[in-house]
Amino acid sequence: MPTLFTVVMAGGSGTRFWPASTRKRPKQLLSIGAHRGESLIASTVRRVEPLCPAERTLIATGEHLLEATKKALPWLPDSSFLGEPVARNTAACIGWATAIVRRRAPDGVVMVLPSDHDIADEDGFRKAVEVAVRSADAGSITTLGITPTRPDIGYGYIKVGDEIGDGAFRVAKFVEKPDTLRAKEYLASKRYVWNSGMFFFKAQTMMEAIQTHMPALAEGLQRIDDAGAEEERVTRDVFEGLDSVSIDYGVMEKASSISVVPASFGWSDVGSWQSAWELADKDEKGNAADDAAVLVDANRNLVRDLRTEAGKKTLALVGVDDLCVIETDEALLIVPREKSQDVRKLVEKLRERGVID
Amino acid sequence: MPTLFTVVMAGGSGTRFWPASTRKRPKQLLSIGAHRGESLIASTVRRVEPLCPAERTLIATGEHLLEATKKALPWLPDSSFLGEPVARNTAACIGWATAIVRRRAPDGVVMVLPSDHDIADEDGFRKAVEVAVRSADAGSITTLGITPTRPDIGYGYIKVGDEIGDGAFRVAKFVEKPDTLRAKEYLASKRYVWNSGMFFFKAQTMMEAIQTHMPALAEGLQRIDDAGAEEERVTRDVFEGLDSVSIDYGVMEKASSISVVPASFGWSDVGSWQSAWELADKDEKGNAADDAAVLVDANRNLVRDLRTEAGKKTLALVGVDDLCVIETDEALLIVPREKSQDVRKLVEKLRERGVID
Repeated sequence: MPTLFTVVMAGGSGTRFWPASTRKRPKQLLSIGAHRGESLIASTVRRVEPLCPAERTLIATGEHLLEATKKALPWLPDSSFLGEPVARNTAACIGWATAIVRRRAPDGVVMVLPSDHDIADEDGFRKAVEVAVRSADAGSITTLGITPTRPDIGYGYIKVGDEIGDGAFRVAKFVEKPDTLRAKEYLASKRYVWNSGMFFFKAQTMMEAIQTHMPALAEGLQRIDDAGAEEERVTRDVFEGLDSVSIDYGVMEKASSISVVPASFGWSDVGSWQSAWELADKDEKGNAADDAAVLVDANRNLVRDLRTEAGKKTLALVGVDDLCVIETDEALLIVPREKSQDVRKLVEKLRERGVID
Repeated sequence: MPTLFTVVMAGGSGTRFWPASTRKRPKQLLSIGAHRGESLIASTVRRVEPLCPAERTLIATGEHLLEATKKALPWLPDSSFLGEPVARNTAACIGWATAIVRRRAPDGVVMVLPSDHDIADEDGFRKAVEVAVRSADAGSITTLGITPTRPDIGYGYIKVGDEIGDGAFRVAKFVEKPDTLRAKEYLASKRYVWNSGMFFFKAQTMMEAIQTHMPALAEGLQRIDDAGAEEERVTRDVFEGLDSVSIDYGVMEKASSISVVPASFGWSDVGSWQSAWELADKDEKGNAADDAAVLVDANRNLVRDLRTEAGKKTLALVGVDDLCVIETDEALLIVPREKSQDVRKLVEKLRERGVID
């Protein structure tokens, strides 16, 4: 195995899990996955510990989230945390972290992981990672693709091309979130996988791809590399000048020699309260409810009391089915599970009105 | 007009409006009627002020509710409040209050009013009261009957007999809460009215009826009358020994010469959160919601933030219709409007489990 570095992207803005998630408490800091009691970001880091030690783990987050993120990962050294001065999407984030890795090990392989996904089969996940790391070490930018289990329209898809060998395949093309008809075709064809947003590459390989496809970013990263004692000021200056571009759009869809490792390990991007309900322990009536909940003639609900400030409270649901009920110190949300993706729209509305920041 | 006394029965136990209502904060102390900002009991007393002054107004409530009830009616003198040592239903309550009136004015007419009803047309109500008072002054025990507007199965009915004159009719019979079929028949026949629970009688007339039909109660009331300085102790002693019987069962259904005054004045017994929604101001989507509520794609909901302790809270409903959402310091209730009568069952369950007292 090559020297492996982990870069965890932890810059979420906290819209889909409102009111549990907020700008100051984004999704990755919540324990809404299958591992209750553990935040999603803590699960993410713990999951790869057998493959990558703390001193080679980097957490890229927003400056305003640094303290809260450190608190969620108390066993990592301070040097693990990168605070982006301003959010400039995944290309800037990955480019910056990769440049930092390159200083230490140009031939090191970087594994980029979202901080807020859930994985049921952790051994299966690590086996897939090992395949992807080998593919990356051989020179490809490699992504993990998840074998679809349903015609989901919430994910991007990757069309799988010819096998390169050892479990890795050429990427035929990236496709945006499809409509239901296409999603069904993709599922039936067995030639498409979900884009997991997990990437693997040698530091040097990615820097060259950025040089080719995003020269402005490459130039900015070089300025940071050359800044010496001025690094902090220059980093801020560079970030402020960067365009907001995703790594998929900026590099992956343009670069040659992109590989994909298809795999299945019980993956979920935990994209809405509906996902949280799916992942949660449920009683015989399908309710995932905290102890403070009293349910009468109520089925398949998600009920969470996430208040921290006040005393005991009884959350009583009578004669309602398939609802998400989320109580925090600042807000109460009631939304049918099947409409939980609309929370994003609600949050936009609340931000417009100045109700939340 | 004879000398009129008002007796307001305010001994509710607070089950149907949980979590707003509790044993210590029963329904009559809430402002859930059409007069928002005013408690139901305050509306009740204010409504009859043009007919009956404060010094002839008695409020019969439980001892444990005395302080809160006085606070809700700060303009009444302390002597207006009667604290029942233990709850023994309406016959004991009315008998006790009537015996007290009789000491002051045996020929005085007593008007007994529930403390927790809503009345839209207050002038119409007072006109009906004047008719009932005249009927009572002529010697009948008289009740106000509400002309039905729908086949409600939640009320007792009164069959209206021959006209006695001046708007009063003989009661042909009292009937219990009917099933839907019968309720429809009653409505179509136009010979039935709802039993409003409002009674009018001369003090002396009621005492004689109690002597005839509930001699044990009459004897107890006489012991209280004779107790002199020992009145408080004897009252407690008498109440503890009394059976729990309603005035309807104990007297009204047995006495001869019962009259009814049919009337319409926008009456509601505010029997459930559904009634509270019906009485509330609503927006163009049918939502009756506090300012703290944010509703997106949500219709015909009742949303109340009745917390007193904590700060501002956003109550967000997304994509839900016809729900009651009630938030208090101690609890959150979510129930469909059409199932809001099930709150009673919920409260019984919570009491069994010791979650509430």
